[in-house]
Amino acid sequence: MNELLYGAAYYDEYMPYERLEKDVEMLNKAGMNVVRIAESTWSTMEPSDGVFDFHHIDRVLDAMYKGGIHVIVGTPTYAVPAWMVHKYPDILAETRRGAGVYGARQIMDITNKHYRFHAERAIRKMMEHIKDHPAIIGYQLDNETKHYDTCGPEVQARFVEYLKEKFHNDTEEMNKAFGFNYWSNAIHDWADVPDVRGTINGSFWGEYEKFRRMLVTEFLCWQRDLVNEYKKDDQFITHNFDFAWKGYSYGVQPDVNHFTAADAVTIAGCDIYHPSQDHLTGLEIAFSGALNYGLKKNNYLLLETEAQGFANWTPYDGQLRLLAFSHLGSGADMVEYWHYHSIHNACETYWKGVLSHDFSENHVYKEASTVGADFKRIGSHLLHLKKENRVAVMVNNESLTAMEFFLHAGGYVRYNDVVMETYRALYEMNIEADVISAETADLSGYKAIVVPAMYCASETTLKNLKEFAAEGGTLIGTFKTGFTNENVKVYSDTQPHILHDVFGIRYNQFSLAEGMKIRTVSVTPEAVAAAVERTADNAVRDFFECVETCTAETVLSYEHDNWGQYAAVTKNTYEKGSGWYIGCTLPFEIRKAVLKEALTGIIEACEVSEGFPVIVKKGVNTAGKTVVYVYNYSGKTQTATVPSGSWNELLSGTAYTGGDTITLEKWGFVILEEN
Amino acid sequence: MNELLYGAAYYDEYMPYERLEKDVEMLNKAGMNVVRIAESTWSTMEPSDGVFDFHHIDRVLDAMYKGGIHVIVGTPTYAVPAWMVHKYPDILAETRRGAGVYGARQIMDITNKHYRFHAERAIRKMMEHIKDHPAIIGYQLDNETKHYDTCGPEVQARFVEYLKEKFHNDTEEMNKAFGFNYWSNAIHDWADVPDVRGTINGSFWGEYEKFRRMLVTEFLCWQRDLVNEYKKDDQFITHNFDFAWKGYSYGVQPDVNHFTAADAVTIAGCDIYHPSQDHLTGLEIAFSGALNYGLKKNNYLLLETEAQGFANWTPYDGQLRLLAFSHLGSGADMVEYWHYHSIHNACETYWKGVLSHDFSENHVYKEASTVGADFKRIGSHLLHLKKENRVAVMVNNESLTAMEFFLHAGGYVRYNDVVMETYRALYEMNIEADVISAETADLSGYKAIVVPAMYCASETTLKNLKEFAAEGGTLIGTFKTGFTNENVKVYSDTQPHILHDVFGIRYNQFSLAEGMKIRTVSVTPEAVAAAVERTADNAVRDFFECVETCTAETVLSYEHDNWGQYAAVTKNTYEKGSGWYIGCTLPFEIRKAVLKEALTGIIEACEVSEGFPVIVKKGVNTAGKTVVYVYNYSGKTQTATVPSGSWNELLSGTAYTGGDTITLEKWGFVILEEN
Amino acid sequence: MNELLYGAAYYDEYMPYERLEKDVEMLNKAGMNVVRIAESTWSTMEPSDGVFDFHHIDRVLDAMYKGGIHVIVGTPTYAVPAWMVHKYPDILAETRRGAGVYGARQIMDITNKHYRFHAERAIRKMMEHIKDHPAIIGYQLDNETKHYDTCGPEVQARFVEYLKEKFHNDTEEMNKAFGFNYWSNAIHDWADVPDVRGTINGSFWGEYEKFRRMLVTEFLCWQRDLVNEYKKDDQFITHNFDFAWKGYSYGVQPDVNHFTAADAVTIAGCDIYHPSQDHLTGLEIAFSGALNYGLKKNNYLLLETEAQGFANWTPYDGQLRLLAFSHLGSGADMVEYWHYHSIHNACETYWKGVLSHDFSENHVYKEASTVGADFKRIGSHLLHLKKENRVAVMVNNESLTAMEFFLHAGGYVRYNDVVMETYRALYEMNIEADVISAETADLSGYKAIVVPAMYCASETTLKNLKEFAAEGGTLIGTFKTGFTNENVKVYSDTQPHILHDVFGIRYNQFSLAEGMKIRTVSVTPEAVAAAVERTADNAVRDFFECVETCTAETVLSYEHDNWGQYAAVTKNTYEKGSGWYIGCTLPFEIRKAVLKEALTGIIEACEVSEGFPVIVKKGVNTAGKTVVYVYNYSGKTQTATVPSGSWNELLSGTAYTGGDTITLEKWGFVILEEN
Repeated sequence: MNELLYGAAYYDEYMPYERLEKDVEMLNKAGMNVVRIAESTWSTMEPSDGVFDFHHIDRVLDAMYKGGIHVIVGTPTYAVPAWMVHKYPDILAETRRGAGVYGARQIMDITNKHYRFHAERAIRKMMEHIKDHPAIIGYQLDNETKHYDTCGPEVQARFVEYLKEKFHNDTEEMNKAFGFNYWSNAIHDWADVPDVRGTINGSFWGEYEKFRRMLVTEFLCWQRDLVNEYKKDDQFITHNFDFAWKGYSYGVQPDVNHFTAADAVTIAGCDIYHPSQDHLTGLEIAFSGALNYGLKKNNYLLLETEAQGFANWTPYDGQLRLLAFSHLGSGADMVEYWHYHSIHNACETYWKGVLSHDFSENHVYKEASTVGADFKRIGSHLLHLKKENRVAVMVNNESLTAMEFFLHAGGYVRYNDVVMETYRALYEMNIEADVISAETADLSGYKAIVVPAMYCASETTLKNLKEFAAEGGTLIGTFKTGFTNENVKVYSDTQPHILHDVFGIRYNQFSLAEGMKIRTVSVTPEAVAAAVERTADNAVRDFFECVETCTAETVLSYEHDNWGQYAAVTKNTYEKGSGWYIGCTLPFEIRKAVLKEALTGIIEACEVSEGFPVIVKKGVNTAGKTVVYVYNYSGKTQTATVPSGSWNELLSGTAYTGGDTITLEKWGFVILEEN
Repeated sequence: MNELLYGAAYYDEYMPYERLEKDVEMLNKAGMNVVRIAESTWSTMEPSDGVFDFHHIDRVLDAMYKGGIHVIVGTPTYAVPAWMVHKYPDILAETRRGAGVYGARQIMDITNKHYRFHAERAIRKMMEHIKDHPAIIGYQLDNETKHYDTCGPEVQARFVEYLKEKFHNDTEEMNKAFGFNYWSNAIHDWADVPDVRGTINGSFWGEYEKFRRMLVTEFLCWQRDLVNEYKKDDQFITHNFDFAWKGYSYGVQPDVNHFTAADAVTIAGCDIYHPSQDHLTGLEIAFSGALNYGLKKNNYLLLETEAQGFANWTPYDGQLRLLAFSHLGSGADMVEYWHYHSIHNACETYWKGVLSHDFSENHVYKEASTVGADFKRIGSHLLHLKKENRVAVMVNNESLTAMEFFLHAGGYVRYNDVVMETYRALYEMNIEADVISAETADLSGYKAIVVPAMYCASETTLKNLKEFAAEGGTLIGTFKTGFTNENVKVYSDTQPHILHDVFGIRYNQFSLAEGMKIRTVSVTPEAVAAAVERTADNAVRDFFECVETCTAETVLSYEHDNWGQYAAVTKNTYEKGSGWYIGCTLPFEIRKAVLKEALTGIIEACEVSEGFPVIVKKGVNTAGKTVVYVYNYSGKTQTATVPSGSWNELLSGTAYTGGDTITLEKWGFVILEEN
Repeated sequence: MNELLYGAAYYDEYMPYERLEKDVEMLNKAGMNVVRIAESTWSTMEPSDGVFDFHHIDRVLDAMYKGGIHVIVGTPTYAVPAWMVHKYPDILAETRRGAGVYGARQIMDITNKHYRFHAERAIRKMMEHIKDHPAIIGYQLDNETKHYDTCGPEVQARFVEYLKEKFHNDTEEMNKAFGFNYWSNAIHDWADVPDVRGTINGSFWGEYEKFRRMLVTEFLCWQRDLVNEYKKDDQFITHNFDFAWKGYSYGVQPDVNHFTAADAVTIAGCDIYHPSQDHLTGLEIAFSGALNYGLKKNNYLLLETEAQGFANWTPYDGQLRLLAFSHLGSGADMVEYWHYHSIHNACETYWKGVLSHDFSENHVYKEASTVGADFKRIGSHLLHLKKENRVAVMVNNESLTAMEFFLHAGGYVRYNDVVMETYRALYEMNIEADVISAETADLSGYKAIVVPAMYCASETTLKNLKEFAAEGGTLIGTFKTGFTNENVKVYSDTQPHILHDVFGIRYNQFSLAEGMKIRTVSVTPEAVAAAVERTADNAVRDFFECVETCTAETVLSYEHDNWGQYAAVTKNTYEKGSGWYIGCTLPFEIRKAVLKEALTGIIEACEVSEGFPVIVKKGVNTAGKTVVYVYNYSGKTQTATVPSGSWNELLSGTAYTGGDTITLEKWGFVILEEN
């Protein structure tokens, strides 16, 4: 595409009365140039088995084309019609909660043969019918695909086959890898592999989760192959990946391996939902955007985000504009709201779209119209923004799965909390960071890699990180990194496995903090000591490791009668590089200071601001010029300093020179393009 | 009946040893003249299939008759014997939790044919056996009948038939009404209607709840018809209606439409349970009593209330007396405790009766005896108190069901909280109010109607309310009123639907309040402004609507950076009447002040007291004289001013004249009868 | 055994690599002389149906024997192999949650015939194989056996047979005993007895729990008989009894009647887990130890306790030593950790052993080594410590079961909370107390018996207690004592049944305390009044009884407008003895003062310390000498006074004389042996 895309999901099927022409008019008036359709409307497209009715799709394609609006068509497969489940009840996924019951979306077993038959037929019928329509710019495969906790007998039988292959048909190999001797779980006949749902073995469960993520990748690739048979060369294929959910997008998705599933698409896509009003920080946009950008190392489509959303997200004046441009700064080429109109029945009545239930030109619509106008006016400067970060945060699904398994069994820590709180520290200091897979082979482009709680790590990954440090990189690890291998078996030598040399430490005990504070030592760097000093709530909470230094230097320790003998933060020189280790959840200001200290001299300090709530994002546009976004994520006016050089502020056309002061209105922003 | 009734539920079946004669003696000594029996004792009345044993009923009827005590006989059908379930397991209701299991009461499918067969036979056998006994003054149908969440296949099949009829056998009409196209739920063959238990559609679920309430009405009418074949003309038929339950009686019952089910009885009856000790306010008695009185626009029977009840309800000295007379003030003609004796086994061991487990003359028995004596002494002045209120609070089940469905899906507000907190504001200001159905056709008797959160409202209801205002009535509505139609489809024009003209406002956004206060504006009435001033905890919490005025005047607004542009409370003149709108949950004192302001000049101010904890109830007795109860719901002595006129205090015989000051002992009360 | 045993559970089966020789070396180095093996490793011992492989057991027995380490062998039956459940799915216990699913330990129906067949064969095969091995000193039957909530049809059918026998085949007798007439639950045909899982009858449920505890006893005796066929005379049989679980050992075990199940063993054994770090008090060790000691009135084996355990238990420096000797002071002859090594897979990865996952000589191992050395050095003075207490706390399972049933139905109080908080008061005052069964026939050895909340008590028990007081004993009872009979039927005469004469009180009402304090009266003893005075948080919480005195004197009353008329604590002279009654949960300091007052002059005051955190335990060793342990359960140095006489401190060899001051290091202790 040669233009920024701006739009919303559009459902003609859900309209309480005929509005299509009026809606095209309103989309145009708002400067919107794209809609996504059809991704959850199977029951209207195929009202009975084998009877297809494309009139909703047809009329929307025609009307949008007439109105100059592009269309992304979704395959309708993530919500199954009632007739199909009535006919084939086994389409419903049996889960840890038992048999499924019809009603919601995302309730089927994506491996079920009847489901697959009907999905294939519906996709083919739809593609045949629409493939030549000129309104269509691309296709979305399914929607927010996951495995829906499928645990039925057929899936489990397939899992046993997978295990046989993994373990070379040797049950003893599996018993050893999974520690199945414990509590008499050892298997000596594949037929005896028990229902995964009762397991008390985190290795077995972890493997099942890995297997189920593989099913998702396989499913999406299967849909890709179907769509590929029909789509034109200039049409893209995307998927709406979503993230872990804590009432909003929050960290690594447990049920999908985004890094492998990305094979199914030609351009990455995702949805990002986040707190708003006084709780709007932009963090979720930055993290999720970085992860999605990284899937193809290229710009991505923001396929869904909130216009109004839930009542607690109704945006304050100015926030909708700020958000649209926040996505662009992370590398999005599209901003699309879910959804155009608020739905009048069913469970998402309160998840409101651009328009409220009354379809009038409300507050949000009016502000969206200014976004649409600006996208048209200056979009060519903002399109295809390229990002090159020198810091990466490394993640994997396996650590997430395993830490969740052990959460209530002594592990105490949530993986995504460590990941997000680590990323937040970088974000608030305006250190833009990639989010990369633990499988990433080539780390040479980075100067520093941060590894939050990589609980499960193969020796390949750990050796790669060791090599990275040996070659001059800065490795920053936190507690629980390298604790188990890829089979969730705790490494039985010195912790952290392999990396203890890089960090110059060891530990073999850990505990929970109670009434414990961070204490500076003689060599604590000044800036870190100052952060400790100014931290009012200096309390270490929950899990910490009893870190003993070998070659490392203790940077921070603990104030505690018994635990004062251990290190909280260490630094070590390792061959050409260095290793920092953080043994506990540091209070946030201290964590920021430690990370800053570790990165000082490694990456360039940000010249624009002291950090949050003033956030800076950078990239290079198609003209080869650097573009700097400066955002104010607060309800108060802020100032920022213009970076060195000569700049044009794209919204106002104002010229700036390095050192100038910019005033940022509440929830405001500027966009500087270098001259 | 020509006398006040006072008594308790009596269970000869549960006695640990022979006590009947002694109990009749103790009932007489306490001034009790009525017992209710048999309503949960099927397994003793019919020990095996078709074998009947009425000896418990017979001996109690005989003994009570001999002792001059009236008996209300309940049909025993709300607790099924084990043999019946053993023989017909499908008698147990299958619910959202799955298959039923025997043990508790109220676990059967009230539509089950085996249950109906046995219930009919048992009722007929019992009626044949007892119909001529002179002790019996009336019958109670079943007990606290509800639908017990019945969801079995037969009930659901019947529901599909109901849907076919409602939608003229046209699935498209249903799809449209319920918005079934959403998430691919559309139905094109009645056979495909899925199990209601999985639905994500609030319209479908709402209809199912309405259908199930209809089953309750039908069941009670069926029992009424059976009893009618045997009962004598001077015997009444009643039912023990209960209310929503929050550990005590709290608002509109979700599972029964009291207004239609009342057809089954000749005199309304109910049970009322409520907090006690320091938490005794009388609110639940006033609300529930008003609702029950309204069912037949006549006096009702209080069939159950707590004597001791749970440990946290054990009454303080004086409270038992206060409570008995509180019910009379609301229009009850009977006060009956559940139950006479505390039970020695099973789950209600700690729900204590008049007597404790030791059967001795305890504190409660002694205080009850003073009530019995006073009922006898002055009861003729208190019997058949007629109530005529000029204010009504309008309610319906549909709003309750729908708001519960959306509670955790963005709706945030509980219907009964809005209803009860609204009623409480009126109650504490001594504004006695009826509780009426949204189906009430004739509103002409009222001067003001308060409509708390009538989320689901048919156009008929809304037009009726509009007409009420047009004709000169004062309509006071709160947020969420008129949001959806009777099918839980959000109205797609200006909100609140139809009534926006009456209120002179509109809104299309809403949000959750955080750190937001009520702010006065230039035209805020003085008394309301004073209430805002004196409210220490001036905080708006949870849901509010972004109300914009059209023709209305803003009475109160918000103190908030972004939401300050909207109105919290508005008033409007509409034709001959007026409309007040409350857009959020106002802090209680402010709510009271707003309601008072809205009603000032419309209804007469109360002359007796400033309000809670001194509460006043009025009515007219059979002698045509006004009776005024003045209650002190507090542990401190209070005073009140005698209303104008000349009065006789019935308990003490003291004469009072308007303007006199009465002293009310802690938890005390007086009863003034006009001379 | 003629030596103290010190060791750990050892699992060769779970080792990630070959370590046996190294481990024997490390055990020896730590002074450990015992391991327990095999109790959860059925799937390695019998990898397929009927195929036995004893190589793990053999090699461990051999290696340990070679290293001079004793072995306790557990029957492997508490964790079933997958193949067995695959073959006989009905081995899994059906519970209140429904059908079982394979995975965890302790999931089988211990009465299932297939389970029994396989368990018997496995035990016999193992015993035949190992019976002559010289390393074995004894056997442990199963592990932490309970009934696992078995509720399947076969067990319930057996329960009906049990009921028939109990009630002489007379359903009416059962209906009366259980109050089954209530809510139509009466049974007139044994075939109609319903599934226990739905019951609302606490008597029926209580009987089922009693029946299931009987199944546990029967199961253990069955295993005992099997083992007895093989074991040698000098080998013991024990079982690892555990206690109620609140995240740690806490009070009476609900699912096992320890007092009857103890018949299955020749020496009592148990596991004790407890809070640690700043929350280490020693209370759980004292209570559980006293109960276990009482089972055989003899020394017992501590079969499991935490070395590191969960992260929040990782011991501070010194605590591991303190703990080991705490068990000895309660009469243990063995201290055995669970477990030697931390496990690398599955759900107990974070339940850490002596060694961490890296097998290095960590902090805990090093401290354990000092314990091992001291056990060797001075163990002969500490072995077989005999305890003779003059105070007993009486408990039974029935009260626990019944109070749990009623917890959320108006009962409000947890049995084990009353038991443990009562025991804690004695413990903190250094009053060592036995924990005895309510079935104990001969109470003559005691001077005082404390009865906390003995809710269910047979008339036999109550009469025995009455007799105890009549003969001169001091009986101290709390609220809820003697409330129901053994069938959980509330006694229908004056409360507390039978004992009201001893206490000289009565009550028939109770309530929940709100804003209520303890108030002294004119005759309140000075020390008790002082305790009231110094109690900052003088608040009575939750349940209390409205106690009226008959012949008793009120010791404490309530500060409350309505409840001030009742007694909180009373004392009474009854024949040659006395009775104290505590009608509510007294604030802790006041409770201590009341108990102290009641026991003053009855038992000797402790001469050593004022009490917690300095705790004293006494006994007589095999040389007939008194041994006094003085422990400091705190992180601060403490002092204590040496009791009169002449003493040798065993650890240091220091001589002490009565009146000397001993300094106790933080988490330190001394052991005085009389000269």
